Amino acid sequence: MDSHDLIVIGGGAAGLGAALYAARFRLNVLALAKEFGGTGNIAHRVDNWIGEPGISGFDLMQKFIEHVKQYGVPMIQEEVTAVSKTADGFEVAASDTRYSTRMIVFSNGMAHRKLGVPGEEEYAGRGVHYCYTCDGPLYRGKRLAVIGGSDAAALGTMFLSEYATKVYTVFRRERMTAEPVSMERVQKLVNAEFVPSSNVTEVIGDGTKVTQAKLDTGRVLDIDGLFIEIGHLPLNQLARDLGVETDAKGFIKVNSRQETNVHGILAAGDITNATELKQFITSAAEGSIAAQTAYHTISKGR
Amino acid sequence: MDSHDLIVIGGGAAGLGAALYAARFRLNVLALAKEFGGTGNIAHRVDNWIGEPGISGFDLMQKFIEHVKQYGVPMIQEEVTAVSKTADGFEVAASDTRYSTRMIVFSNGMAHRKLGVPGEEEYAGRGVHYCYTCDGPLYRGKRLAVIGGSDAAALGTMFLSEYATKVYTVFRRERMTAEPVSMERVQKLVNAEFVPSSNVTEVIGDGTKVTQAKLDTGRVLDIDGLFIEIGHLPLNQLARDLGVETDAKGFIKVNSRQETNVHGILAAGDITNATELKQFITSAAEGSIAAQTAYHTISKGR
Repeated sequence: MDSHDLIVIGGGAAGLGAALYAARFRLNVLALAKEFGGTGNIAHRVDNWIGEPGISGFDLMQKFIEHVKQYGVPMIQEEVTAVSKTADGFEVAASDTRYSTRMIVFSNGMAHRKLGVPGEEEYAGRGVHYCYTCDGPLYRGKRLAVIGGSDAAALGTMFLSEYATKVYTVFRRERMTAEPVSMERVQKLVNAEFVPSSNVTEVIGDGTKVTQAKLDTGRVLDIDGLFIEIGHLPLNQLARDLGVETDAKGFIKVNSRQETNVHGILAAGDITNATELKQFITSAAEGSIAAQTAYHTISKGR
Repeated sequence: MDSHDLIVIGGGAAGLGAALYAARFRLNVLALAKEFGGTGNIAHRVDNWIGEPGISGFDLMQKFIEHVKQYGVPMIQEEVTAVSKTADGFEVAASDTRYSTRMIVFSNGMAHRKLGVPGEEEYAGRGVHYCYTCDGPLYRGKRLAVIGGSDAAALGTMFLSEYATKVYTVFRRERMTAEPVSMERVQKLVNAEFVPSSNVTEVIGDGTKVTQAKLDTGRVLDIDGLFIEIGHLPLNQLARDLGVETDAKGFIKVNSRQETNVHGILAAGDITNATELKQFITSAAEGSIAAQTAYHTISKGR
């Protein structure tokens, strides 16, 4: 069985950052991912990766992947199905193969919770978005809807109101559950409108982009885009099976060296509780730090 | 007096990352720096900024600066001389102007540490140097010493070996603490020599330029120049004057939101204790997080 110092699970910014730095630290590293580039691949236009204004998510991820390849890191596109503890490390079972390793970085991210309505998938990245800080600035002078009643939805409304001419905030309860201070701010926005007791039933478009959202109240909103803020699901099952601790929302608890409570297991990127700012830049940084921690741990023979 | 939500002090990766994200969060942000690009400008070849294998530090910093400019952030090249508390924020005194702001990000990095031996000051710039990428090319066909055992010292040795006929790498421990990838490369250099368990006690010259370095082992190296790479000192004085806490090494203590112990003051990058991995990627990430924290703090009117 193939044996490694470090296996990085996940192929987004965190995983690629970890792979790059692990290679620089001369670790015998293997990268496994369902898809290299991960959810970054589908970001329409990235304007928050400093130095690359307006690059597409796909192009940015290709640049990351090419850089990691230059270091000769094996990158295998295979889904990890289970990870188990062994005497001196871990065994990673993927779809086709089993690998052994001394340490692991979990960087398999999170899934955005979806509405599950017609049109949502069809218009993903073309009017349907899950990250307002990423894609909001594209909608200067346009009409938008934020779907969700949480504090994140309120913050999204505030953020988007700076760009859009109109922002509808659509939520299923009578009131939002946002923090009072956020609510006060949102209530003062002249271009924001609350749409309570409502659920989106369909996203409608012209074949190219979003034009409307249909609500279960019968109302139809004329919009250019909608931002779905109904929560995230950290993909933590593999880690939890190993006894890795998560916070109340399911994010893996890490310290400033990206260490979890389980020796030999590190985590980086969206899957962790390291920061609320879940972006390419923070993910890549966490991955890099995790690689350094792996190097120090292995150098010290621990 | 010019009034702002946020003033970012420092123009390196951390400061530029903070400025970019602050602008994205629609804060009224001002960036002040002695030099935009900072020490990043003088990095000869950067291979750890993911997606840009082998880019020069100067080119990378230009890309960062251009991106921030696209957001219309005012970037003023001016040294900050003092920061003081006011009723509702801070007053920042720069060389020519005074600015008022609600919040501050300190991202002014670190300075080079000196040996503190006779001759060091006398021959500064005339054989004694602290930046191999800046001054190394002056020593084509000459004999040099690099002082230090870190990865920076190893990288300096590699760089200088391309110009000098001979490079001594002088360090106080038995072994260097450089990254393995760097060590492998240095060990292959035919014109480099390790001088372990040694400290420079005096820099000797002919009145005009350096001719020798005296070591505490009794050995004397005949050299034309020496490059000192023994670490850095966080530039924390402005922050300390405001009561900001630092750790034993002088790094500003921050939490995971880049907050210091003083309300309204954030810090990001090399100047903080956030991570031991002091790199462009971690600095830019910390700056971005600091901007988000400023945005949340100001949104909530705290």
